[in-house]
Amino acid sequence: MKSRIAVAILSTCGISLAFAGEPIQPIEAAVITEPGKVELGKKLFFEPRLSKSGFLSCNSCHNLALGGGDLLPTSIGHNWQQGPINAPTVLNAKYMLAQFWDGRAADLQEQAAGPIANPKEMALEHEVALDVLRSMPAYRAEFNAVYGDETISLDQVTDAIAKFEETLVTPDSRFDLWLKGDKQAITAYEQEGYELFKSSGCAGCHSGPAVGGTMYQKMGLREPFETDNPAQGRIDVTGKSYHRMVFKVPTLRNIDLTYPYFHDGSTYDLTEAVITMQKVQRGKDLPLEEAEKITAFLQTLTGKQPQIVMPILPPSNRNTPQPQPFVD
Amino acid sequence: MKSRIAVAILSTCGISLAFAGEPIQPIEAAVITEPGKVELGKKLFFEPRLSKSGFLSCNSCHNLALGGGDLLPTSIGHNWQQGPINAPTVLNAKYMLAQFWDGRAADLQEQAAGPIANPKEMALEHEVALDVLRSMPAYRAEFNAVYGDETISLDQVTDAIAKFEETLVTPDSRFDLWLKGDKQAITAYEQEGYELFKSSGCAGCHSGPAVGGTMYQKMGLREPFETDNPAQGRIDVTGKSYHRMVFKVPTLRNIDLTYPYFHDGSTYDLTEAVITMQKVQRGKDLPLEEAEKITAFLQTLTGKQPQIVMPILPPSNRNTPQPQPFVD
Repeated sequence: MKSRIAVAILSTCGISLAFAGEPIQPIEAAVITEPGKVELGKKLFFEPRLSKSGFLSCNSCHNLALGGGDLLPTSIGHNWQQGPINAPTVLNAKYMLAQFWDGRAADLQEQAAGPIANPKEMALEHEVALDVLRSMPAYRAEFNAVYGDETISLDQVTDAIAKFEETLVTPDSRFDLWLKGDKQAITAYEQEGYELFKSSGCAGCHSGPAVGGTMYQKMGLREPFETDNPAQGRIDVTGKSYHRMVFKVPTLRNIDLTYPYFHDGSTYDLTEAVITMQKVQRGKDLPLEEAEKITAFLQTLTGKQPQIVMPILPPSNRNTPQPQPFVD
Repeated sequence: MKSRIAVAILSTCGISLAFAGEPIQPIEAAVITEPGKVELGKKLFFEPRLSKSGFLSCNSCHNLALGGGDLLPTSIGHNWQQGPINAPTVLNAKYMLAQFWDGRAADLQEQAAGPIANPKEMALEHEVALDVLRSMPAYRAEFNAVYGDETISLDQVTDAIAKFEETLVTPDSRFDLWLKGDKQAITAYEQEGYELFKSSGCAGCHSGPAVGGTMYQKMGLREPFETDNPAQGRIDVTGKSYHRMVFKVPTLRNIDLTYPYFHDGSTYDLTEAVITMQKVQRGKDLPLEEAEKITAFLQTLTGKQPQIVMPILPPSNRNTPQPQPFVD
């Protein structure tokens, strides 16, 4: 009776029954309702003139050719500064309960403003970034067409970037096909890996459509996670000591593409990462063959990557603030 | 009679008569005969793992969202090193008589090998770059499918990149439409600019389909070109003193997109660049209104930009040499 009610509720929510009992739900294809904003946001996502150097764009560290990340332990910012933490993938980021590892941005729009002005990242003051865009008639016209206003505000810029990023989802992974009823879509071995993923407690935190991103959790719940990385997690947002080393649970979607792993990017090996997680979160030594099965399951989470036609960006002119690539 | 013979010869060469008397010929759309090589080459063009840092690709400095350049005076290389010379656009580069400003590479294939291993650019030894590619089954399979061989050689890598770059042409500029007979495609003002371009001697060097790239020429033929840039040009290739400050004549196709100008990237202003060229190459002070007309003509040379669907690059694995972003 209870499960019948649950099913009824899920049906109301539009979630198909095939996977009602599973901790993971499929990623659905993007439905684009505001194509003008998405197209403008794509331009801004690829726009290196939103950086002080004129060289770095959102796509530099959230490279859509590379699973939406940069494949580096921590990123490279203005003047080749080393970033403090591993760049999370932008793919399926819309499913996260908040943005950044410590959740300090409520949503994609709030997140988008951060790296532009961060002196370790793109290092361009917001007002200068806006002046760069305002200097170009083509951008003014496009903002006017999309927002009915050609003044170009930071809110509009970040709204457009967020609208583009919301389209960056990866449906139709083999696991999703399996969830939706195609029982041949994953192998028996991979399915055993999925059962282990659940029975070993991974799914307790890594759940929902993005297989993560629905909660915060302490890194090193049972045993300390050894790292040289100084990040302290959510304590920096809340000031509460029990939030030390508490991070947003990362998505495992496309995990095969988004190495190196953990907030410190300390391992490139997915199986090793699985074993480490069992150790620090559950205090257990996972046998290698079980870790390999879980790895095989995780590799079925690679979905259809967004097909992105590169934007053609409008030219600067004599009114455009010039980049300062070799100024600290 | 002489011109009738010329016309006959041109007809034999397949060049339409409409523009037989003009110093500029239209850019023709790419005809792709080896799509597998082009597709592989596109992956390699966007492949940051061909750099020591794992962060820089061909597209970093020859950005196809930005007219095939980086819009910087000189480029940013490994560890944020400042490059020695302005990055030339990759668009229409196949029309150049040789590659690099000093022509030290005979063709696109020879050029492609340079930046990968240049310690100031991507800084990755060729053998390591090849090992990176060889470590990934998806690359091995693709090289095998395209070259019938999965050993992956530098020649294959650079051949594929060159094959992709040969497709990066920009047909159908307004000027080309005019050349081909659409007399409304450019304005009377722009056409006056074109006449000035010819009568002022610009077309003496900037000719051919790419409006440049067909010869070497001294920069500062009549008066010295003042610059802090130490590049000496073709003397570094030939050792001949009369090749000091002799550079390949750059293409003026898409010149409105490919600022800043000159081998030292010393000006962002196209009209200023036109005036400087008249001064140093012809010893003449071009009136501003004539320079502005020539500028208006030059802006008609912006062609249809290549529409590039970003490639999805295969994931590294435990056999892939890891990037070293923070090692000199």
